[in-house]
Amino acid sequence: MLEKIKKALTIRNRTVREALAEALGTFLLMFFGIGGVAQVILGKGEFGKYLSINLAFGIGVTMGIHAAGGISGAHMNASISFTHCVLGNLPWRKLPAYIIGQFLGSFLAASFVFCMYYDALCEYSDGHYIVTGPNGTAGIFATYPAPYMTLLGGFVNEFLATTVLMLGILAIYDKKNNGALEGTQPVITGLLVLVIGMTMGINTGYAINPSRDLPPRIFTAIAGWGIEVFRAGDYWWWVPIVAPTLGSLAGALAYKLLIDFHNQSALEGGDEKRKDDLQTNHV
Amino acid sequence: MLEKIKKALTIRNRTVREALAEALGTFLLMFFGIGGVAQVILGKGEFGKYLSINLAFGIGVTMGIHAAGGISGAHMNASISFTHCVLGNLPWRKLPAYIIGQFLGSFLAASFVFCMYYDALCEYSDGHYIVTGPNGTAGIFATYPAPYMTLLGGFVNEFLATTVLMLGILAIYDKKNNGALEGTQPVITGLLVLVIGMTMGINTGYAINPSRDLPPRIFTAIAGWGIEVFRAGDYWWWVPIVAPTLGSLAGALAYKLLIDFHNQSALEGGDEKRKDDLQTNHV
Amino acid sequence: MLEKIKKALTIRNRTVREALAEALGTFLLMFFGIGGVAQVILGKGEFGKYLSINLAFGIGVTMGIHAAGGISGAHMNASISFTHCVLGNLPWRKLPAYIIGQFLGSFLAASFVFCMYYDALCEYSDGHYIVTGPNGTAGIFATYPAPYMTLLGGFVNEFLATTVLMLGILAIYDKKNNGALEGTQPVITGLLVLVIGMTMGINTGYAINPSRDLPPRIFTAIAGWGIEVFRAGDYWWWVPIVAPTLGSLAGALAYKLLIDFHNQSALEGGDEKRKDDLQTNHV
Amino acid sequence: MLEKIKKALTIRNRTVREALAEALGTFLLMFFGIGGVAQVILGKGEFGKYLSINLAFGIGVTMGIHAAGGISGAHMNASISFTHCVLGNLPWRKLPAYIIGQFLGSFLAASFVFCMYYDALCEYSDGHYIVTGPNGTAGIFATYPAPYMTLLGGFVNEFLATTVLMLGILAIYDKKNNGALEGTQPVITGLLVLVIGMTMGINTGYAINPSRDLPPRIFTAIAGWGIEVFRAGDYWWWVPIVAPTLGSLAGALAYKLLIDFHNQSALEGGDEKRKDDLQTNHV
Repeated sequence: MLEKIKKALTIRNRTVREALAEALGTFLLMFFGIGGVAQVILGKGEFGKYLSINLAFGIGVTMGIHAAGGISGAHMNASISFTHCVLGNLPWRKLPAYIIGQFLGSFLAASFVFCMYYDALCEYSDGHYIVTGPNGTAGIFATYPAPYMTLLGGFVNEFLATTVLMLGILAIYDKKNNGALEGTQPVITGLLVLVIGMTMGINTGYAINPSRDLPPRIFTAIAGWGIEVFRAGDYWWWVPIVAPTLGSLAGALAYKLLIDFHNQSALEGGDEKRKDDLQTNHV
Repeated sequence: MLEKIKKALTIRNRTVREALAEALGTFLLMFFGIGGVAQVILGKGEFGKYLSINLAFGIGVTMGIHAAGGISGAHMNASISFTHCVLGNLPWRKLPAYIIGQFLGSFLAASFVFCMYYDALCEYSDGHYIVTGPNGTAGIFATYPAPYMTLLGGFVNEFLATTVLMLGILAIYDKKNNGALEGTQPVITGLLVLVIGMTMGINTGYAINPSRDLPPRIFTAIAGWGIEVFRAGDYWWWVPIVAPTLGSLAGALAYKLLIDFHNQSALEGGDEKRKDDLQTNHV
Repeated sequence: MLEKIKKALTIRNRTVREALAEALGTFLLMFFGIGGVAQVILGKGEFGKYLSINLAFGIGVTMGIHAAGGISGAHMNASISFTHCVLGNLPWRKLPAYIIGQFLGSFLAASFVFCMYYDALCEYSDGHYIVTGPNGTAGIFATYPAPYMTLLGGFVNEFLATTVLMLGILAIYDKKNNGALEGTQPVITGLLVLVIGMTMGINTGYAINPSRDLPPRIFTAIAGWGIEVFRAGDYWWWVPIVAPTLGSLAGALAYKLLIDFHNQSALEGGDEKRKDDLQTNHV
Repeated sequence: MLEKIKKALTIRNRTVREALAEALGTFLLMFFGIGGVAQVILGKGEFGKYLSINLAFGIGVTMGIHAAGGISGAHMNASISFTHCVLGNLPWRKLPAYIIGQFLGSFLAASFVFCMYYDALCEYSDGHYIVTGPNGTAGIFATYPAPYMTLLGGFVNEFLATTVLMLGILAIYDKKNNGALEGTQPVITGLLVLVIGMTMGINTGYAINPSRDLPPRIFTAIAGWGIEVFRAGDYWWWVPIVAPTLGSLAGALAYKLLIDFHNQSALEGGDEKRKDDLQTNHV
């Protein structure tokens, strides 16, 4: 009978399974990521500092890739899915399923973190859900620019951060160049996200991902912070959607132009002894 | 003669050997884990902060898996052993041996940490072993909820934290999906426990494991903190036993429903070219 | 048509491709590295402390090696390129291309970080770009010695730090000794740079690399800090060029004299059973 | 001619080469380790906190194993060398060469750190080299117990810390159990030393190694701190020699009794299907 139930629950449609995998992967990334922000903010610095947030998003990415990588490729980022469509690696017709899965997982993660930290949030905020400022708590869920930032500066920051994100991912997974050891790419990709947070996090909160930012923002709008979450930061909300998408494309283009185009033709052109030469470089 | 002694000391009963392995693995996990808490609390923040505690439990898990993984599978967690019984991976008749081994290792670790930190504890507590509050020291050994927590909120926290723990473990070891490289799973599982501590530790102390919480609690009851260790936090002690067990089951169920069921039939159903498609996703 | 564009953009000249790879690798190293310094200084310690800087340079090295390693060997350091020429691993005629690539990437990274942190820099410095001292900001880009340092002491520090850098790199990549697992060398090299920053960073800022120090220094001279960036620290600027170059040579010599010379002849001399003996050493 | 020089400098005596390798490995471990302590103490907490010291010793171990592991097994610890002699893995006649190499490397590392931090030490100490207390600087080089520690308590601490060190090393390198992936053992052993520092460092400074403690202590006695370095802590100096040696033996014994004896006979006795059973444990 257990076999029957199992059979009944089994989904054979590949796109649905990919959407489920994206949902699970993005859920893990976001549950760990914004859970880390919650612990640092609500713990008033006694239970981790900014580095803990960076580590939480980094390891969250690692765990999300382990959970979803074999099914959907574990994009967990609408900008990256979009870029893979442009590059021809993902059929355009699958893009909606990927984005729906990611948004679903991200929204669920925000609501789970809200439940889990409900008591702490009451204690911290005294029931007043303020969006930004010293007692602001909406920043647990979505990103807001620092007070000194201009909109243009914030856009540039998100654009550049996603450029190096995409560049790094392509390098880590590139088997023709010097990618990470098969099976260790998830942890190295986590290191990449960690370093982005440690170096480009202060200005804008490094969304670098529409699926990371928009669904939790919608959740906070519903859960009590109100429409201010979209107004704050000079209507900041659209920047973490547009800038990462352009940045991701720029990163892919840069990697292709600087490394990959020439490398592919070199390999085809019989330049294979190159690798051996290089290995001696290191002794 | 050495050979004779060796032979006399050799245990051929497999269940006993598995219990010993669980004892050793859990001992290492707990010796490092609560040793880390002791150093942070008794060192008053000069010898590590909360992140050190998270790292200590994470690396403790890594070391425990290296020490016991080849013999018993290194559960080191009664909830996980229970879940493996439900899943059919561990015979029910072995469950008592696993739990006894784990509890023994955990109790021994608590007593060893007590001995090792006896001088520091005297200095810190002036001989008064207080359970909770600013000068409380029972929290070195077992977990207690934060003052603002409701019992329900704490239960939810422990439940969810163990859910993602089990989910993550299944993903890390899943060879049909995108698991960690063979031989690196112990360190990746350590990262998983690290991130749980950094993101879900502030409310309840992230027991996520009856074998981590109950034996040290019993030890403190005996060693001088008294029966208050069971009364504190509105009789909190049963939550780290029940909530992780249910959470672990929920995590296994979630992974099966979202990923594994469909994946298994896909593989059986000749969908093997899927993997190749995905690899191109990344370039 | 896309194929045509691709073909037109493809560079077949190997030296140009190596220069591009060095540029990209050094850009990533420096963008992460000095981005990390910017975040720590401009964030006034709220968004990471000194350890974050060390981690940023470490992971920056890892990412740079992944991006450039398969094309150019990912030196990202003029002293290391020079040493490889002396060792006969890199033809001397290629040295200029390597250094030009590295300097270009480093200069670009400095200018990108300047753009990205322009708003924060305005807020922090009130428009006054001061080189050193408590409100100095030139230290975001290039290195300056601590006030108590003598020029000799600083030279020794940079020399020794680059000695162990080169020693460590040769050990990590040495397949005849006990190098890191193939494919994990980038992350282990990152650990090496991390530990150098944690142990030899306080006196001189651990440039250990002309390509890390000179181009950003030139950038700051142009961008508003003026010629003082070359005068500061008793005309410090030449030390991070000369000392790492000598230190890198010393490190290579030390590794050859202490390990590699004897190891090579041992292997040639039929001493291959040595390895098996050693493996038993560990049980 | 270069070939001739190389030949003249090549040492074919295996024991000398092993001593050189131990010297180099221990040098790297100690140069990074006590360099890290120097940076934290002399930087007054602005350039890393206690965690940085733990990380520095951990990564120092990793680098030492990469540098010496293929030649001598990279013990870098007289207690471990002694234990390997008792276990029959190292011939007793080689023990002196191993210890001489380790002591030499450790002494050299102390003197190099002294040179490198000479300017900073002058600034910090105003020329007065005090052994212990708030302005003490001898603790940069050798270990001293915390003021509240009894000699017995300190002995127990060093004994237990070395017990789990040896236990962990044997587990990490055990191919019949669940050891770390070949080529990643150096970094996992580094994690082990990191966690020992984070959990057992506060009472005694976790020498866990005569080769780590005695030579730098002798160096400080000569360099200006005087004979007080042997008197301090109730003549503490002999504890980091005796306790780790006994602890290391105890750790090896514990691993043999709890895991290895039974495991070996199980493998010999045709119980090989055990492994397959276990693998299913994880799904």
